[in-house]
Amino acid sequence: ADEAEYSRGQQLAQQCLGCHGETGIAPVTTNPNLAGQNAEYLRYALTAYRDGNRKGGMAFIMQANASSLSDSDIAALALYFSSQTGRDGSQP
Amino acid sequence: ADEAEYSRGQQLAQQCLGCHGETGIAPVTTNPNLAGQNAEYLRYALTAYRDGNRKGGMAFIMQANASSLSDSDIAALALYFSSQTGRDGSQP
Repeated sequence: ADEAEYSRGQQLAQQCLGCHGETGIAPVTTNPNLAGQNAEYLRYALTAYRDGNRKGGMAFIMQANASSLSDSDIAALALYFSSQTGRDGSQP
Repeated sequence: ADEAEYSRGQQLAQQCLGCHGETGIAPVTTNPNLAGQNAEYLRYALTAYRDGNRKGGMAFIMQANASSLSDSDIAALALYFSSQTGRDGSQP
């Protein structure tokens, strides 16, 4: 199931690439990297954005983007991004 | 200045280790990893928590932790965690 869920997440992630990067290393440093983030945290945050429980700052952008996601979409996205390798902080 | 700011961040980070890990890889997967995150995003998020602009979910915990931080503390913490290497997502 993980294989199928991973590719579903990869497909859904196309919607996130503009702000968070192809594999979750954000092209804009005001945005968070998602690569290597904890899947459980990503599920929690995406659900909080979708359901309007996380407010303030950029939440309104994320709320719009997450509004159409089902729980299984969110799980697939979390699996995809958490499976990527985080940014090597020793590089600038 | 970076050297001094980095060690100041490392010192301040002692306060964060319980939830976010020694080098920003969270020991609890409900918590976000900070290692390799973008410094600018970390400054934005920490300031939003401190100033109460980010609400909902776990914000109340972060607001309490960030309440005593000055802007330069926040910059030092952001430098420290963003300089770490993010989690290798290909490992479980």
